[in-house]
Amino acid sequence: MANSERFSGVIAPALTPFKADFSPDTARFVKHCNWLLEQGCAGLAVFGTTSEANSQSGAERMALLEALVKSGIDPKVLMPGTGATSITEAIELTKHAVDLGCGGVLMLPPYYYKNVDDDGIFRFFDTVIQRIADDRLQCYLYHIPPQTVFGFSLDLIGRLIDAYPKTVVGLKDSSGDWNNMAAILKNFPGFNMFPGAENHMLAGLRNGAAGCITATANANPAKLRELFDKWQTPEADDLQASITALRKTIQSFPMVPALKEIIAHFTGDSDWKINRPPFTQMGAEEVRNLFVELEKHNFTLEQPKLAMAGN
Amino acid sequence: MANSERFSGVIAPALTPFKADFSPDTARFVKHCNWLLEQGCAGLAVFGTTSEANSQSGAERMALLEALVKSGIDPKVLMPGTGATSITEAIELTKHAVDLGCGGVLMLPPYYYKNVDDDGIFRFFDTVIQRIADDRLQCYLYHIPPQTVFGFSLDLIGRLIDAYPKTVVGLKDSSGDWNNMAAILKNFPGFNMFPGAENHMLAGLRNGAAGCITATANANPAKLRELFDKWQTPEADDLQASITALRKTIQSFPMVPALKEIIAHFTGDSDWKINRPPFTQMGAEEVRNLFVELEKHNFTLEQPKLAMAGN
Repeated sequence: MANSERFSGVIAPALTPFKADFSPDTARFVKHCNWLLEQGCAGLAVFGTTSEANSQSGAERMALLEALVKSGIDPKVLMPGTGATSITEAIELTKHAVDLGCGGVLMLPPYYYKNVDDDGIFRFFDTVIQRIADDRLQCYLYHIPPQTVFGFSLDLIGRLIDAYPKTVVGLKDSSGDWNNMAAILKNFPGFNMFPGAENHMLAGLRNGAAGCITATANANPAKLRELFDKWQTPEADDLQASITALRKTIQSFPMVPALKEIIAHFTGDSDWKINRPPFTQMGAEEVRNLFVELEKHNFTLEQPKLAMAGN
Repeated sequence: MANSERFSGVIAPALTPFKADFSPDTARFVKHCNWLLEQGCAGLAVFGTTSEANSQSGAERMALLEALVKSGIDPKVLMPGTGATSITEAIELTKHAVDLGCGGVLMLPPYYYKNVDDDGIFRFFDTVIQRIADDRLQCYLYHIPPQTVFGFSLDLIGRLIDAYPKTVVGLKDSSGDWNNMAAILKNFPGFNMFPGAENHMLAGLRNGAAGCITATANANPAKLRELFDKWQTPEADDLQASITALRKTIQSFPMVPALKEIIAHFTGDSDWKINRPPFTQMGAEEVRNLFVELEKHNFTLEQPKLAMAGN
């Protein structure tokens, strides 16, 4: 079983809105994050892959994080991505998050070099954790081989937990490989593992996962929360099937641009479509196809007028 | 033929020395860079893969670059790596290099996301070049699929040259794939292509390459320069064979740690062995094997006492 004093539930890797000049749109970001929490998300994994985090500078990410806290969001529900290819930046971002009181951080391995071994990744985390030297640090490992190519082996996870049992407390598994998730759950009881996509949410919860951290929580937070609340009821399998079907539709389009199109569409706020290179905006026909497909799920953004419309 | 007004010859992707606390060692860096130029390197591709550039912050790299210029090195021979996963950092680093008068920059594509297409990479470079908006910018593309997974397709190279013929002027090809290098040379005459390893140096020069940008230039600069000077002479093939054999030996060890061991060994300056995570230092036995193998080539660092010993 996952440790219940740590993060659990549906965590949203919040999208980052940009202005036409590509600068981060702080006001829209704060509003979106508050809406995600109102919709039932237990936490916000801001500055993840879905957030175009690595398409931003460290300074931009720190400013956005400060704005969230200043807006009144309890920093305990924040799990910002603070991994970087350099110890310098990983330390700076992580220390900043800890000092703001964030409940945890989600750390990518140093992802530039592809021929590194477990000793090198261990040395990276060992250095960062030693330099931060703060009992408040709660580190969640970000396992995402589709982007980083390599990831955290079971052996490496075990070494990091053994070295820092009170600090290395969980992992987001975005491998898409259920066998890997199941092996982590089996090998490390009490370690808070989150499947990185909701198609493995119910199976995860039944095997001791802590919840789910998934891109589509940006568009579908209430339904995901419903499954989390009802996973031990007879409705669970049907809820999972419906959620999985919707995910399949969304992920048949470019994920981040599609999520931004969805929010732009349902809030009537077209600036939400803007993303940073190397992403591109979807073409008009592809956008039309997206909404034709979403119609088949009777999809709508929950309470958009209430929480997100206008300024 | 390569354009002779641009970078040509042997360019060293200079190693970055660190202190025991992992901070960059500016004095040792300046000394090493000056030695590389004395040994015949035509330029310095500081902050490349060999330089552990992405294991450093932007601020650290900018400070090191300023120290080089302040030491009296002509900025025209400097081709710093300024690519980044974010337009924010790529623009900041590139503008800094241009303002210092650097002869060029070597730019990685935004390497976090792996499912980007040519349009997205084009959009990234288009944005960066437009924001810099400076005729002095001379951009060399850094094609290195072993680390970034994707790279610059021939079509994308053509689009970038067409859009910015006076700005996008060359490319370092670290694919290791001669067919790709040959195709670039054939398709883009006047574009300054550098093989990213010296095993393709002579073939490259015979087909119009501008020179070579290679990690081992940190240890073997004079011999590489000799081949560049003599590539049209009868000695060329023998020189290439000898250089290739040495490279094969060095690359049978972890490249960056091995190069640092070599410099530490021949200068008697053991702090040169330090590298940043995710790299690790070589074990004692592996180091012994390295020098046993180097002995077979009668390898020695050229004039180490003269330029590099002690303080």
